[in-house]
Amino acid sequence: MKASQFFISTLKEAPADAEVVSHKLMMRAGMIKKLGAGIYTLMPMGLRVVHKVEAIVREEMNRAGAVELSMPVIQPAELWQETGRFEKMGPELLRIADRHGNDFVVQPTSEEVITDIARQEIRSYKQLPKNFYQIQTKFRDERRPRFGLMRGREFIMKDAYSFDRDQVSAKASYQVMAQAYRRIFDRFGLTYRAVAADSGAIGGDLSEEFQVIAATGEDAIVYCPNSDYAANMEKAEALAPAGPRPAASQALTKTPTPGKSTCADVAELLGVPLQTTVKSLVLATDTLNETGEVIKTQVWLLLLRGDHDMNEVKVGKLPGLSAFRFATVPEIEAHFGCKPGYLGPLNLLQPVKLVVDREVAVMADWICGANEADFHITGVNWGRDLPEPDMVADLRNVVAGDASPDGQGPLAIERGIEVGHVFYLGTKYSQAMKATFLDQNGKPQLMEMGCYGIGITRLPAAAIEQNHDERGIIWPDALAPFTVVICPINADRSPEVKAASESLYAELLAAGVDVLLDDRGERPGAMFADWELIGVPHRVNIGDRALKEGNVEYQHRRDAAATAVPLAEVAALLIAKLKV
Amino acid sequence: MKASQFFISTLKEAPADAEVVSHKLMMRAGMIKKLGAGIYTLMPMGLRVVHKVEAIVREEMNRAGAVELSMPVIQPAELWQETGRFEKMGPELLRIADRHGNDFVVQPTSEEVITDIARQEIRSYKQLPKNFYQIQTKFRDERRPRFGLMRGREFIMKDAYSFDRDQVSAKASYQVMAQAYRRIFDRFGLTYRAVAADSGAIGGDLSEEFQVIAATGEDAIVYCPNSDYAANMEKAEALAPAGPRPAASQALTKTPTPGKSTCADVAELLGVPLQTTVKSLVLATDTLNETGEVIKTQVWLLLLRGDHDMNEVKVGKLPGLSAFRFATVPEIEAHFGCKPGYLGPLNLLQPVKLVVDREVAVMADWICGANEADFHITGVNWGRDLPEPDMVADLRNVVAGDASPDGQGPLAIERGIEVGHVFYLGTKYSQAMKATFLDQNGKPQLMEMGCYGIGITRLPAAAIEQNHDERGIIWPDALAPFTVVICPINADRSPEVKAASESLYAELLAAGVDVLLDDRGERPGAMFADWELIGVPHRVNIGDRALKEGNVEYQHRRDAAATAVPLAEVAALLIAKLKV
Repeated sequence: MKASQFFISTLKEAPADAEVVSHKLMMRAGMIKKLGAGIYTLMPMGLRVVHKVEAIVREEMNRAGAVELSMPVIQPAELWQETGRFEKMGPELLRIADRHGNDFVVQPTSEEVITDIARQEIRSYKQLPKNFYQIQTKFRDERRPRFGLMRGREFIMKDAYSFDRDQVSAKASYQVMAQAYRRIFDRFGLTYRAVAADSGAIGGDLSEEFQVIAATGEDAIVYCPNSDYAANMEKAEALAPAGPRPAASQALTKTPTPGKSTCADVAELLGVPLQTTVKSLVLATDTLNETGEVIKTQVWLLLLRGDHDMNEVKVGKLPGLSAFRFATVPEIEAHFGCKPGYLGPLNLLQPVKLVVDREVAVMADWICGANEADFHITGVNWGRDLPEPDMVADLRNVVAGDASPDGQGPLAIERGIEVGHVFYLGTKYSQAMKATFLDQNGKPQLMEMGCYGIGITRLPAAAIEQNHDERGIIWPDALAPFTVVICPINADRSPEVKAASESLYAELLAAGVDVLLDDRGERPGAMFADWELIGVPHRVNIGDRALKEGNVEYQHRRDAAATAVPLAEVAALLIAKLKV
Repeated sequence: MKASQFFISTLKEAPADAEVVSHKLMMRAGMIKKLGAGIYTLMPMGLRVVHKVEAIVREEMNRAGAVELSMPVIQPAELWQETGRFEKMGPELLRIADRHGNDFVVQPTSEEVITDIARQEIRSYKQLPKNFYQIQTKFRDERRPRFGLMRGREFIMKDAYSFDRDQVSAKASYQVMAQAYRRIFDRFGLTYRAVAADSGAIGGDLSEEFQVIAATGEDAIVYCPNSDYAANMEKAEALAPAGPRPAASQALTKTPTPGKSTCADVAELLGVPLQTTVKSLVLATDTLNETGEVIKTQVWLLLLRGDHDMNEVKVGKLPGLSAFRFATVPEIEAHFGCKPGYLGPLNLLQPVKLVVDREVAVMADWICGANEADFHITGVNWGRDLPEPDMVADLRNVVAGDASPDGQGPLAIERGIEVGHVFYLGTKYSQAMKATFLDQNGKPQLMEMGCYGIGITRLPAAAIEQNHDERGIIWPDALAPFTVVICPINADRSPEVKAASESLYAELLAAGVDVLLDDRGERPGAMFADWELIGVPHRVNIGDRALKEGNVEYQHRRDAAATAVPLAEVAALLIAKLKV
């Protein structure tokens, strides 16, 4: 491609609403253009990157035996009503009525449509397993779209859906996809982790997120540097502390803590470590009658160490707590006789269910609220001052330094951006939509399903968050809009420079290199700045002075400076680097 | 690809709602699956065809210097309000409100968005000309979606938009596209015509439709078999008859024609050729005041020969008739003193403007209504019985045998399916949206635009309408889902058949042939019927009997029977046929 036949449009400054680095750089490099909130045109430079992502994904999906199809973007509401998602998905689901008043949705994902296809097309166990995928435009009406392609409303996703005759086969299909995803992310040339994720009500470990590691990532990833353990924060287990509970050594003492309603403030006031404090969280669960009225409410008190955070996913999985909510202030006052800020498990007005984090269960001499404004209690001890809790469980997010669940040392935490997800669905959709096949005995059985997504337009943004510097983007070879750029210097004044540039361009093209010749006639400074912003990984500068000695300059986007290379050798050098 | 890794789903019968042959065959061949009215999933077999269409279009668009981008499917209403199309497009435009109540449309085309991009990105004449294209999902909320992909609501279109500094350059850009379209349709391997189409108010000849010729096509195409003249029915000019008007030879006679209100009935009753009759069409045009009230109505009488049909596009271009409507019955009665069925230009109650087709203007001794129920007048002659008309013009559709406008002989008419359109837009959108650039003198000028569409998902349907027989589809090589299919016969009972099939498959794959090995283990009859229905152009049958003599069978989808070919030569034969 020659620059004069392409469209290059760079900006010195990013627009004010671009908050994260990938959004800023994609706007500045002319890769995307905003049309509305969370809605972007993929400009020619950006579309080339997206096409490279798509090509790799398509190749590896095909290699893994998945079959491509393309479901409609606009889907009838009926199918979404069958699974209940038409209502459940809330305002994120973009709903439309057509000219006849029939309801439709703009697909955010396609479980319903593919299950409808499967229940019509797959009749016999002989047709299974089957994995269908598509690469298609999706829409999610985010309340606060932002960060460019990172959290857009319209986006491109590769979504795949596997259908199997039983769990054993479904798990094998899942593993085939998990392996394909590893190959895909390896080929992208990104640093990533496949992390165990929560698989909801289904249980088991059959849910993994593919996270591109980046300091700016919105997800916390927990991993063990000594092993291959990795999980997202929702999923990572905090083990019970190894040792036994120490014996009580302090007397129970009510202490004035005026205005100090947080554990941190109390610890500071009393001059004790935050780890000696315990925070009280009050939840409630409602029992409904047949008509949906609340006939009974149970209040729960959760205790966590002052420096720990509650993990809502873990709490939601505890018996009785699947539909928990936070208690209201009147409910709290009725049980604790006190407003939030000074709560604790002692001196309750009404009984509550007491659920305690594994860490708190082995603490001695701890500090909690006194259920009286401006007072805490120190020297609290299990057994002596209050009965053992109703339940001890893992209630919290892990923190760096916690023991890895696989026993291989302390956990570390880093940030990541989720760009892929493989998920075993079981019969959630096949049951709702009665998607059955006839087994070997001619009996109808529900299909076992899995679903597998990759955020095709999110991936370039994640790649940039991981690979950039103060001058711009640094693309891995596999994702670059162009792999090599040739920059002729003052070609208008030097026929030799022009000829050498054209000839190198032709040679690289013939070798299958995705090369761009910058024939715009820009000054060297502006030209180099453009390509460093756009992030083409390999650059060859061809100028008069070096050319007189038979040389050109080669510079990788990560190199601090250019290196002289004989003109006669530069094509071979590039071809070797690119392994084309 | 092996069939076992793919998804093949054929039907013996087409669903009842499939009316046209392409719809029936695409459903039966498992290429598309209906999700809702005019909304189809592209099944794996169909998506392969669509991908082939896309690849050829993309290659030729790039070769022609167009630059690919991808505009959003969901577009803010504001831009559509700028051009007035948000209201003007009526119920075909699918409108949505997002969660904040902001209005959006699902793109049926993207003139507004691309013009918005151009007015922001193109500042100087130095950046022109530029041609942007996309291949993207579109939606048109057809009142009566039907015929499968032929007139679906959701469809894929390639739409391109050129921007130029002046008309000369815009016309050159138009010609580049028209040439690229010829290359594209040549590569598809379809019989097609590029036909001149009406270019609306802009005038000139810069509008061509690309019509795939098919007996079932909904458009009539006018062409001259002796030259390259071709136009659609709206556009094709009917020349004035060559000779002078004959002299009057009959007396004016009022003739009873009870109940005969059509020209055909009158001609039959009187035993004269239909070509001696003249039909009267009454139109009206309204003059409005500033507040939109009708302050004056002009009634027009159009005369056409009894065997000719009025061409509304041509009539709409005549001076004073751009906003014509058909007159109401009261308006007709007030001017003619008679209900429709027996109207004519003689004995009017009030004057009308008389517009006469070129053919009628040179007729003598003709027949028309008497403006009295159940009576016609014969022997009517210009000058003698009524004054010369106010206007003589081309008012009618041409018919086969009319003289070609280029003087190269008589016109012929055939049917076609429109799958592409190139169109010079002028400044229609750039004016509405103030898309200007600075010319060499630093003065702002409106960009000259063109737009160029190809119906990517409509094309396979058109190809099938042109290429099928009673057994199924017959794909041109370039569009086939697979170019070659290998059918092993009873491979489960013959290791030799299996080995020969696998080895031929590997050899063709290595040569870059898009080959499918049917390893499903179906009986030969069912297997052949499937591939004839699906329409793979080249088939190799490998069976035990022929193989013992070193032979296999080759059959092109158009061949009546298979031909024996030595196994050792079949790969070379295929490669030569396919020119891979």
